[in-house]
Amino acid sequence: MKLLIPGPVTTRAEVRAAMAQDVAPWDEDFRAIYAALRPRLAAIANAPASTHAALLLQGSGHFVVEAALRSLLPPGGRILVPLTGAYAERIVRLARAAGREPMALPIAAGRPVDPAMIAAALAADPTLSHVGLVYSETSTGVVHDPAAIGAAIRAAGRRMILDAVSAFGALPLDLAAQPEIDAVAFTLNKCLDGMPGMGTAICRIDRLQAGAGHAGSWCLDLADVLAQGGKGNGGASRFTPAAQVLLALRVALDLLDAEGGAPGRLLRYRENARALYDGMERIGLSPVLSRGVQGPIVVNVHAPDDPGWDLQRFVDALKRYGYLISNFYDTPSPSFGGGCSGAITPALLSGFTDAAYAARV
Amino acid sequence: MKLLIPGPVTTRAEVRAAMAQDVAPWDEDFRAIYAALRPRLAAIANAPASTHAALLLQGSGHFVVEAALRSLLPPGGRILVPLTGAYAERIVRLARAAGREPMALPIAAGRPVDPAMIAAALAADPTLSHVGLVYSETSTGVVHDPAAIGAAIRAAGRRMILDAVSAFGALPLDLAAQPEIDAVAFTLNKCLDGMPGMGTAICRIDRLQAGAGHAGSWCLDLADVLAQGGKGNGGASRFTPAAQVLLALRVALDLLDAEGGAPGRLLRYRENARALYDGMERIGLSPVLSRGVQGPIVVNVHAPDDPGWDLQRFVDALKRYGYLISNFYDTPSPSFGGGCSGAITPALLSGFTDAAYAARV
Repeated sequence: MKLLIPGPVTTRAEVRAAMAQDVAPWDEDFRAIYAALRPRLAAIANAPASTHAALLLQGSGHFVVEAALRSLLPPGGRILVPLTGAYAERIVRLARAAGREPMALPIAAGRPVDPAMIAAALAADPTLSHVGLVYSETSTGVVHDPAAIGAAIRAAGRRMILDAVSAFGALPLDLAAQPEIDAVAFTLNKCLDGMPGMGTAICRIDRLQAGAGHAGSWCLDLADVLAQGGKGNGGASRFTPAAQVLLALRVALDLLDAEGGAPGRLLRYRENARALYDGMERIGLSPVLSRGVQGPIVVNVHAPDDPGWDLQRFVDALKRYGYLISNFYDTPSPSFGGGCSGAITPALLSGFTDAAYAARV
Repeated sequence: MKLLIPGPVTTRAEVRAAMAQDVAPWDEDFRAIYAALRPRLAAIANAPASTHAALLLQGSGHFVVEAALRSLLPPGGRILVPLTGAYAERIVRLARAAGREPMALPIAAGRPVDPAMIAAALAADPTLSHVGLVYSETSTGVVHDPAAIGAAIRAAGRRMILDAVSAFGALPLDLAAQPEIDAVAFTLNKCLDGMPGMGTAICRIDRLQAGAGHAGSWCLDLADVLAQGGKGNGGASRFTPAAQVLLALRVALDLLDAEGGAPGRLLRYRENARALYDGMERIGLSPVLSRGVQGPIVVNVHAPDDPGWDLQRFVDALKRYGYLISNFYDTPSPSFGGGCSGAITPALLSGFTDAAYAARV
């Protein structure tokens, strides 16, 4: 079964196979593996070891985003969240549940966030210390621009928490050039083409240490994860990790390196997205986004304006051809998406398009 | 490599092999698997479906314990924690970090918790709404008695949160007979002989619903996990789970059933513990606990009173024979343990004892 969703993605057999072993997390051999993963992840975002740390956390992307919010904003701290889609709404909910004060900023649907709007919102409210941005909004397929938005945030003397869950490993990131970014949150099972069960936050060490004691949670306290990693046992996980998922990550990172790192992966994903966009148009389905704003992670198309249309039936039919797409609508107007990330190629997506045509008949 | 630790445990090859597939968590086939796992877990604790729900949560045992504390105690709520060892200390820290007020109760080292002491402590302080108990304290090897302690809690009109992380799947639990237990927290990689990455809390539905809004966290809110499971999609995971770990759990539960459920598994673990206890004595290492209080999950022995003794060297030597034990001391006086849980047998432990003898030489 090929998963054509923005994640968990289709993985390569050798990534999955790496999980088939028992691991004691505090074993010296595993510690060495664990310790080596962290700088490899940091390097993907060009995060210098002197200023940044890649911190592994149990759970899904939501867990890492919540941990970043708790660890970098004080209780009651205020964060501006441009409402780019379903995942931005989740940042709002995560922040509010954690006792922070999110301020939602409406933006035009299906458009990249305009840095000038962020600058204006920050200028209007000096109590907003942070901006919470979703890099790749999988609910719409729009990729936003953390460099341009970050420049506006930096100019305003504020900081950013970046949800890069469906971006990290493919879309560019240069943390050395963006000191306003306090934390980048992501998981291992999206553009890293790895397995689900663990997430990561790459954090500025100074900001995290300054916020130590803020989290109001031991499990979701990234300052504590950092402190544990600094105890002369940089390879020690705090609590039992999903160790097999980390063994899979090691193989996934080797494959990322072999592909030329994030730039090489992005090229392939872009080709995937083009193949999917073209294919969908060819079989009479209309992409939601224009080619100009269409990102390389997920291509959403409008549900056919056909009284007989039934998404679940379409999904079930596609599944019989060996392809799995999402069976739910994540957007205000019904649209459904095909993922372009994971261990898939334009040729596979061309086969998928043929199957999608057959599945509609 | 055989892991002789209380968890993550040694697993069977078919459990590990079940992880080697890609999964879309919202796929109907996976939802059916997910939905079927929950009542199977509840049944192990004799938790009626009308009153209890088994709720799966991303993360390690600490995550589930913190989620139970947050979801069942209000902010500032007070919980009595008998200090049975390292894991009880962690309940104290988890509760305090979450803004609850733990009260630590010192108890005699290496002894089961005396229900009369709990009754006295609760009688002395009516503001203590809960008791947080560790069922199997792996740092000492002592198994405490939630039935007897629960009776004292019930008589006092209070409630219990039970950390059954190193107990669930082997040690007995009867939630139908213990209405004072609000939640039992555990993971899949201890006595269930499964893989790490996900935990479970079996909760009383009424208590969880009464506490809805308490959690101060979206990720660690068990009332929200329950609500999600009740949306006519009982198989839907909230956020991406470690799906492969759940596929492994399904196989692990089949193996548990084939072994005669928790009673059958406990028999094997008891035989394991006896073999390990006998073997350690045979090679001149002194168990910390008397046979009367020695539990079936972990057998701790005193570090040899020998100036040349070096735990890490011993662990490394054992590893060359294919056995892994913990390389740290978790007790006030130096002792180290061998785990009796997981897919291991008395014969294997006899081989381990021989290796331990050789490793000391």
